[in-house]
Amino acid sequence: MNELEKLTELFTQFPGIGPRQARRFVFFLLRQNAGYRSTLVHAISDVAEHAQQCTHCLRYARLHAQKPLCNLCADSSRTEEELMLVEKDTDIDQMEKSGAYSGKYFVLGGTLSLTGKKGFIREQELVKRLEGASELSEIILALSATTDGEYTSDYLTTKLSEGKDIKISTLGRGLSTGSELEYADATTLKQALKNRV
Amino acid sequence: MNELEKLTELFTQFPGIGPRQARRFVFFLLRQNAGYRSTLVHAISDVAEHAQQCTHCLRYARLHAQKPLCNLCADSSRTEEELMLVEKDTDIDQMEKSGAYSGKYFVLGGTLSLTGKKGFIREQELVKRLEGASELSEIILALSATTDGEYTSDYLTTKLSEGKDIKISTLGRGLSTGSELEYADATTLKQALKNRV
Amino acid sequence: MNELEKLTELFTQFPGIGPRQARRFVFFLLRQNAGYRSTLVHAISDVAEHAQQCTHCLRYARLHAQKPLCNLCADSSRTEEELMLVEKDTDIDQMEKSGAYSGKYFVLGGTLSLTGKKGFIREQELVKRLEGASELSEIILALSATTDGEYTSDYLTTKLSEGKDIKISTLGRGLSTGSELEYADATTLKQALKNRV
Amino acid sequence: MNELEKLTELFTQFPGIGPRQARRFVFFLLRQNAGYRSTLVHAISDVAEHAQQCTHCLRYARLHAQKPLCNLCADSSRTEEELMLVEKDTDIDQMEKSGAYSGKYFVLGGTLSLTGKKGFIREQELVKRLEGASELSEIILALSATTDGEYTSDYLTTKLSEGKDIKISTLGRGLSTGSELEYADATTLKQALKNRV
Repeated sequence: MNELEKLTELFTQFPGIGPRQARRFVFFLLRQNAGYRSTLVHAISDVAEHAQQCTHCLRYARLHAQKPLCNLCADSSRTEEELMLVEKDTDIDQMEKSGAYSGKYFVLGGTLSLTGKKGFIREQELVKRLEGASELSEIILALSATTDGEYTSDYLTTKLSEGKDIKISTLGRGLSTGSELEYADATTLKQALKNRV
Repeated sequence: MNELEKLTELFTQFPGIGPRQARRFVFFLLRQNAGYRSTLVHAISDVAEHAQQCTHCLRYARLHAQKPLCNLCADSSRTEEELMLVEKDTDIDQMEKSGAYSGKYFVLGGTLSLTGKKGFIREQELVKRLEGASELSEIILALSATTDGEYTSDYLTTKLSEGKDIKISTLGRGLSTGSELEYADATTLKQALKNRV
Repeated sequence: MNELEKLTELFTQFPGIGPRQARRFVFFLLRQNAGYRSTLVHAISDVAEHAQQCTHCLRYARLHAQKPLCNLCADSSRTEEELMLVEKDTDIDQMEKSGAYSGKYFVLGGTLSLTGKKGFIREQELVKRLEGASELSEIILALSATTDGEYTSDYLTTKLSEGKDIKISTLGRGLSTGSELEYADATTLKQALKNRV
Repeated sequence: MNELEKLTELFTQFPGIGPRQARRFVFFLLRQNAGYRSTLVHAISDVAEHAQQCTHCLRYARLHAQKPLCNLCADSSRTEEELMLVEKDTDIDQMEKSGAYSGKYFVLGGTLSLTGKKGFIREQELVKRLEGASELSEIILALSATTDGEYTSDYLTTKLSEGKDIKISTLGRGLSTGSELEYADATTLKQALKNRV
C-alpha cells in the first residue's frame, strides 16, 4: 500500500465518507499548496492538544490552562438544579442556540441500541457525575425521538429512578417545525393535541 | 390533439403527475381489459354522485340518503364543545387514527399563503359554521407546522378572537417521531423543553 | 367498501401510485367541477374506443376507420428492410424524436426477467410478424442497457438467428449524454473507446 | 476563532463538505485516540512529500527516487502512438480498470466552462507535452459527455487540428450501462443506432 492508498484508507474512516470521496480528498490535498496542508496538519495537532474533554460534562472543548471544566460547566450563573443528558457534543450547541435552557449538561456519547448495532452510553461516568450533584432536582433526557433514543430514555428513566428522589423528564413530543399533519404519526398527533397551547 | 394526447393532458392535472407519468397512465389504461376501464369510469361517476360534501364539516364523504351530515358530524357521542380546524379531508383521517380526539371538525380546504402561491381558506363557511355552534368552548387550530400553516393559524387566531369568548388553541410543538436533536431547530427545541414530561 | 375506497383502490393499480397518492387523486376529483370529471370519463372511454392496437407493430394508437395499421406501419416511405424491437410504446416516441431511424417497429410489451419478477415478451406475435416480412434484412434490438434488457437481447439474438439469414444488431454502448467518466463502468468505457469518432 | 472552529473551517474546504459534516469530522478526530491522529498527520505529510506530479502526464503518483515519470508513463510496453486526454487523475484509474486502453495519458486538470464557473485546463503544459511526441498518431479526447466536457472537446479539437496531421477522436456515445430508452435523449439514441453492433 503506497502513501496515496494509505491516506485514502484513513479518510474512509471519517464519518459518512466512502472510498470514492476519500480518494477525492487525497487528490484535493495534493492539488493544494504546501501552506494549506501545513495549516491543516497543525490544526489537527492543535485540536488534539488544546481541546480536551471537560471532566464534568465530558464534551470536547477548549479548556483553559489548569482548569478541568468547559465554559458551560464553569459558568456559575447556570443552575446546578437541572442536568440535561444529550447524545452528542453537537446536541449541546443546538440546545444552546435555542436559548431555552440554563442548566448543566452531560454527554452520553451515544445511545443504547435495540437493533443489531453496537450501542454505547457513558453509564459509569454518569453515575459518578450524579454522585457529586447535591443540588440536582431534575434530570432531563434530551434524546432523539428515534427508536434507539426512546429505548435509551426508557432505560435511563428506570435506572435513574431507583432509590432516588429526582424528577426524570423527557423532551415533549409534538409537531416539529416543517411537520405536515398528513405525514404525522399517531404518537406525534396525540402529544401535539395534549400539548396544545 | 388526438384522444391519447387529450387524456394525457387531463392526467397531468392530477396532483403530482407530470407529462411522463400521465402518458404511462394512458398506456396502462389501454393495456387493461375493457372491464377495468368500465369499472373505473363508473367509480369516478359514482364518487361524484354519492360522495357529497358534509354541510357541517365540509369534507367529502358518503352521506346517507336524505341526510346532510357525515358520520362524524352526525355522531352525537362526539362533543360539540371542541371544534378542530384542519387543512384537508385526509388530515381528519390522520387525527382519527390517533384516537386522541373526540370533538368535531371543520375542513378549511387549504391555507393562506405568505409566499407567491394563491392561498385559500373557507372563511365565510367557517363564520357560518360558528354561528350555530352554541356549545362551543374551544377551537383547535390543527394546521401544519409550516410557514403557511403558521401564518394561517396566526390569521385565524386574531380573526376568531374578535369579540368572542372562546379559547383558541394550536397543536403543541416538540420533537416529532423520528426527529433527531442535531437537525431540530430552536423553536422545536424550545417547545420540546417546555412540554417535557 | 364505499365509493371513495373503491375508487382509491382502483387508482392504486395505476403505475407508480401508492395508497396515499391514490387518495389524493380521489379528493382532487371531488374538488373538481362536474365538467372536468365528465370530460375525464369521456376521454377514458374515447381512448378505449378509438385507440386500438396496430396489428403490425402492436402499439396502441389512433387507427383510421377500416384500417388495421398505425401511421408508422402504414407509411410506405419507411423501409421494410429494418425492424426495430422495443420494449414499450413510448420507446417508439423517443426513437422518433431522435429522427435517426426510418424503418419499422415492433413492441415486445416487456422484457424477460433474470431476477424474480415475472418477465414477458410477445414472442408468438413476433414470430408471426416476421413470417410476413419478406424484405427484412436487419432486426435491431433496441432494449435498455439494463440486466433484464441485455438478457432479453441475448435471448432474442439466439432465437432469431436460428436458421435465418438476417442480421441481428443491438444499440451501441458508450457514454450517454450527461455521463461522467468517474462514474462510468468498464463495459461502457470499453465500448466508448471502441466507438470513438 | 478557537482551534475547533479553525479545523472545522479547513474541513469545509474539502470537496463536497459543508459546515455540519466538517464539524462531525472534528468531533470524530477528537474521539479517536492519539495514535490515529498521529497516523493521519503523518500520512498527509507523506503524501505531500512522496506523491509528486509525473512530469509527463501530470497526474499525482508515487514517483521512484530520481525518476520523474509515473509507472504508466515509464512503461515502455504502452504505445506512444495514442495519447488520451482526461479531466482528472481518477479518470485514469477508471480507464485502466476497463483494460481497453494501452496508450499514454495526459491529465487536463479540469474542463473549460460554458457556464459562469471558472474553467481551467493545462493548455500550455499540453502544448509542451505534444512537442516531444514524435511517434504520436492519435489524440483521444476522453472527456465527460456533459456540456462543459463537450465544450472542452470542441475547443481542443479545433486547437489541436491546427497545422497538425494527427487524428483527433472523442469517446463514442451510446447507451451507457443502466440506460433505459425511455430516458435517453435524441443524441444518445442517434449515436447508439449508428454504433449498433
